[in-house]
Amino acid sequence: MTPFTRRTLLAGGALVLGTTTFSSLAPQPASASARPTGKQAPTLYRYKIGSYELTALSDGVWDRPIDDKFVRNADPAEVRKAMTDAFMPATDRLPIPFTTLLVNTGSKLILIDTGSGGQIAATAGTLGANLAAAGISPKAIDIILISHFHPDHINGIKTKDDALVFPNAEIKAPAPEWTFWMDESLPGTAPEAIKGYVLNARRIFRNIAKNVTRFEPGAEVAPGITSVAAPGHTPGHCAFSVASGNQSMLVLSDTTNHPKLFVRHPEWQPVFDMDGALAVATRKKLLDRAAADRMLVQGYHFPFPACGHIARSGTGYEFVAQEWRPL
Amino acid sequence: MTPFTRRTLLAGGALVLGTTTFSSLAPQPASASARPTGKQAPTLYRYKIGSYELTALSDGVWDRPIDDKFVRNADPAEVRKAMTDAFMPATDRLPIPFTTLLVNTGSKLILIDTGSGGQIAATAGTLGANLAAAGISPKAIDIILISHFHPDHINGIKTKDDALVFPNAEIKAPAPEWTFWMDESLPGTAPEAIKGYVLNARRIFRNIAKNVTRFEPGAEVAPGITSVAAPGHTPGHCAFSVASGNQSMLVLSDTTNHPKLFVRHPEWQPVFDMDGALAVATRKKLLDRAAADRMLVQGYHFPFPACGHIARSGTGYEFVAQEWRPL
Repeated sequence: MTPFTRRTLLAGGALVLGTTTFSSLAPQPASASARPTGKQAPTLYRYKIGSYELTALSDGVWDRPIDDKFVRNADPAEVRKAMTDAFMPATDRLPIPFTTLLVNTGSKLILIDTGSGGQIAATAGTLGANLAAAGISPKAIDIILISHFHPDHINGIKTKDDALVFPNAEIKAPAPEWTFWMDESLPGTAPEAIKGYVLNARRIFRNIAKNVTRFEPGAEVAPGITSVAAPGHTPGHCAFSVASGNQSMLVLSDTTNHPKLFVRHPEWQPVFDMDGALAVATRKKLLDRAAADRMLVQGYHFPFPACGHIARSGTGYEFVAQEWRPL
Repeated sequence: MTPFTRRTLLAGGALVLGTTTFSSLAPQPASASARPTGKQAPTLYRYKIGSYELTALSDGVWDRPIDDKFVRNADPAEVRKAMTDAFMPATDRLPIPFTTLLVNTGSKLILIDTGSGGQIAATAGTLGANLAAAGISPKAIDIILISHFHPDHINGIKTKDDALVFPNAEIKAPAPEWTFWMDESLPGTAPEAIKGYVLNARRIFRNIAKNVTRFEPGAEVAPGITSVAAPGHTPGHCAFSVASGNQSMLVLSDTTNHPKLFVRHPEWQPVFDMDGALAVATRKKLLDRAAADRMLVQGYHFPFPACGHIARSGTGYEFVAQEWRPL
């Protein structure tokens, strides 16, 4: 395998051109082929907001089986049409991306949501590998901000064996979210549909409760980062605004699930939204603000790199993905 | 810088979870922050067509200054509106991505177009670094397919000092393209607008002429790869179809420049199209075929990873980017 014995040509990850002399301009037969890798490239994307360096880090994609009840208040044929129009590979499963966001302020490393911890789907759980590809040790994370307590956002806090993945990070979570999910009576009274989420949230947070800082939605939670109340998806669900210099952007968290369905049709209620009507009101409010102000947004369930803009459209709004740029 | 002294935690690029024991569940103060990288992440994306592994490799982005004459036959206000609707950062320069495509058939490594060789814009010329990030030495490339002879497609064949970058590759180019650009009388007769391109094509190809295979558009040019005549952008411009197993896709090359302008408005003629009317006819024909057959397409000047589908829309067509997937 010639390609892999020529590593001396590569310095610091960049190909050094012009330092190699070629004995002849005539082509030589290539001696071997490169093995197909069979795996995706590192999935991270950097951009700047003022002096802050942001990194979108993929935790993978969950291909969630769906049925006619997945969107509570839409004609299933319309949902299938929206998926076909988006060239999704099938209409009976929705590819739901998970994308976390790392903010480097220059003095603090802040991770917004923590991915699935490899505990949800075989095609998710890549945050650790992508963080490593970004050159960041989990020990270097100073602050973790949690948007809400669904497993795909909090499970990355711990391994399956309950060890802390980010041992030096201060964890900050919305106070109303904590109040709802950690209520001692909830395991006995919760509806069947959310019982798993309740037990999972308790597994993650119960033995580290004294070390989790709870914030009121609207509070500044890190330098330049302010939480934004966005209830409905869950009782205490938060978005975050990130500002540095004269630039800012909005982390929508789960204000909308997949944009090809719920940005296009903000009135549609996915089964994930605990209070469907309130979630729709919050969604319309934040999308309208983002569109009016032409704000850059990041969406946890938007296709990687999950950042872009919101434009008004015929049915509601349209997500316009940011074009990949050199930094 | 603690994060960078913890490399022992990282094995094979992937974070090994569960092998580290944490002495305490209580947070420890993080000892240092990570330095902002100041550079973009490796920019490559892998996908499969049948048994072939394809890798989109970015050569960067050229921010080309444009004026009212950039689109020959459109109202400049409409062009500016299309750019504003696409959330481009300005309307007096167009960010034109360069994205090459590597096809690994399992026995051959085939590179379609070669990027700018760092000879066009400071923000382009990253193909070599991204190829290295993909674990591929330039010596391993078996075949280079050239779509046409514009500098952003052929300059990567050589360094500034005229050394071959891919010394073992057989170079294959469209015969009508060769006939046009390499005509010995052309340097004396070419219109001023293309004189630079003529001299550049001669610099690249003249002393390796006997080693460049010329193919007729329509010919199979590599296992499973067939050239497709797509004239107008240049006289011999080619697209390529890639097929393996029961899957196939279409490499559009420069059939359209930036999709937010020229897929949306296929009748618009950018100054790059040498025969504007013929280029429009070719563009409409290929886009219509791609839309009708719901084909996966790759566009050299589409935003990275530059693959997706074509849908019919009110003004012409719309490019629907492929959603980033685990392989």
